[in-house]
Amino acid sequence: SVAAPSLAADALPTLTWRLASSFPKNLDTIYGAAETFCNRVKELTDGKFTIRPYAAPELVPFNAVLDAVKDGTVEMGHTASYYYYGKDATFAFDCAVPFGLNSRQQTAWMLQGNGMKLMREFFAEHNVVNFLGGNTGTQMGGWFRKEVKSVEDLKGLKFRVGGFAGKVLAKLGVVPVQVAGGEIYTSLEKGTIDAAEWVGPYDDEKLGFNKVAKVYHYPGWWEGGAQLSFYVGKKEWDKLPKLYQAAIETASLEAHVQMQAKYDARNPSALARLMQNKTILKPFPQSVMEACFNAAQETFTEEAAKNPKFNKVYVDWMAFRHNQSQWFNVAEQTFARFNMMRKLK
Amino acid sequence: SVAAPSLAADALPTLTWRLASSFPKNLDTIYGAAETFCNRVKELTDGKFTIRPYAAPELVPFNAVLDAVKDGTVEMGHTASYYYYGKDATFAFDCAVPFGLNSRQQTAWMLQGNGMKLMREFFAEHNVVNFLGGNTGTQMGGWFRKEVKSVEDLKGLKFRVGGFAGKVLAKLGVVPVQVAGGEIYTSLEKGTIDAAEWVGPYDDEKLGFNKVAKVYHYPGWWEGGAQLSFYVGKKEWDKLPKLYQAAIETASLEAHVQMQAKYDARNPSALARLMQNKTILKPFPQSVMEACFNAAQETFTEEAAKNPKFNKVYVDWMAFRHNQSQWFNVAEQTFARFNMMRKLK
Repeated sequence: SVAAPSLAADALPTLTWRLASSFPKNLDTIYGAAETFCNRVKELTDGKFTIRPYAAPELVPFNAVLDAVKDGTVEMGHTASYYYYGKDATFAFDCAVPFGLNSRQQTAWMLQGNGMKLMREFFAEHNVVNFLGGNTGTQMGGWFRKEVKSVEDLKGLKFRVGGFAGKVLAKLGVVPVQVAGGEIYTSLEKGTIDAAEWVGPYDDEKLGFNKVAKVYHYPGWWEGGAQLSFYVGKKEWDKLPKLYQAAIETASLEAHVQMQAKYDARNPSALARLMQNKTILKPFPQSVMEACFNAAQETFTEEAAKNPKFNKVYVDWMAFRHNQSQWFNVAEQTFARFNMMRKLK
Repeated sequence: SVAAPSLAADALPTLTWRLASSFPKNLDTIYGAAETFCNRVKELTDGKFTIRPYAAPELVPFNAVLDAVKDGTVEMGHTASYYYYGKDATFAFDCAVPFGLNSRQQTAWMLQGNGMKLMREFFAEHNVVNFLGGNTGTQMGGWFRKEVKSVEDLKGLKFRVGGFAGKVLAKLGVVPVQVAGGEIYTSLEKGTIDAAEWVGPYDDEKLGFNKVAKVYHYPGWWEGGAQLSFYVGKKEWDKLPKLYQAAIETASLEAHVQMQAKYDARNPSALARLMQNKTILKPFPQSVMEACFNAAQETFTEEAAKNPKFNKVYVDWMAFRHNQSQWFNVAEQTFARFNMMRKLK
């Protein structure tokens, strides 16, 4: 059945936006989520709404995306919200919190729990409307020049690690160091740092860390399911026609699911190649995990006591995490334990 | 910056399609995925492309959706591809296979492995273009009037369970029985069947199975990550303007991620309520899991030997599953084991 004359379509504006990504182009999976998003929005609007992605640091440094969106330098960003932990620890809930939710649970909390509602409220103070923009799954613990065998080994360890995890680890004597992605290799090689964490096998292999640090520890308990986010400037968002808003909403979820699928599909062979290149794959000792868990709880409690915004989200998030653990331990984990161990034979 | 005159938009046709769902309306999560999808497509096309969802069995019975799309009775369907296992076992790879991929791995195989390519090839013979349409995660093993304590207990057990799992379980003496969703309760109550599996706590609670069978076994190893699918008739698909095709592609992925998030967010409290109502929650014994795993491998081997279409997909899927297991056992599973056990205290 064909076709009444078009409705609002004639009136749809031609818009050209800029999106600042926190990621370089060579990290094709995480940067690629912005491309997936922009391409789809363009298709959905018959080419009228063009959003052009810029890799970091072309427009702004990787950790200045929030400010660039907030102050209108760019209309959009694609970033990891925990980069802004230093401004307010509450940002971390939009990305990853130590011993936090896995990727499915994070998505469930955001989309069907109270997560999106709470984070939208928080982001509104920064003139940002946030959207899901990918998830890495549980990351690796990073590359260590010497194996971590006990809590004692953490003392004085110069570790390139982000905000929240750094704060937790400092309680155990770690010296958290900030090093830009492009300088990690040299810092490890020179011994300026003892260890560095990045993402997982697929990205880590590209940056060549295995050549300068042999021990690959896991898991990255500070990034059990690290979510990426798209930011849209609130003022720009409010001006958009409904159809363009719908395009952003749906395309961001497509990018969200495609990014994780890409990591999941590519990490296994990257890990296999790293193993062939003499990587020593080691879990953190149980004693280290326990000490870190306890230090994380302490850090949460301190932050919640002094930061009411953090506390408001934390209370909801804790209850959600507790309920998820109960349920995931039943069918999902029992299946995973059996099925995965069985197939490794 | 505003606005050149619209392009193809004027020419976009007004279309009204019907979508046959395999699910009743009271299963709001799984049926809801079709609503999410249809609403979004409508928004994205400024109301010009309307797809109306019909719950089962309003247009066709739950397991006749494939034929209805294939023969053009409806333009679209939302269904579980393993319902068509009886026509060809290959359909199961589009949904769930015993001891198969978990939900993230299934999505990764479909979107970033060879899954979608292989399944599209297979579905083309049925005049169907398939899209992802949700995932339940690992399901429960079902409701049993008597606890399964050993492989011996499977002999003669009249179990309401679907195609592929039924075939596997028959090797161990189970009598698989087909019972429509609405009749399971009465069949369990009367003892016509000894056990029945459905989905998980949220759906199972609605159907009240806990009132007539006390033992709730897990995991549902035949549905480690059961994917739902949207079907579009190939002829109708080919006629669509590109913008409408893009709307279907992206809205189906939105429905995919929203459906799982909804199950994940709702299952924990449903399980808690079931436990308060004297449900006996029990894992299948390890010996039963092992016997079922072996019977599944046998069934795969037999099917692959006689069905070249199945074999073609199976070979790719097996390699993917193997690689996924290796990788998931590192960061993801180590984190899950520690984090979830720790928080249960």
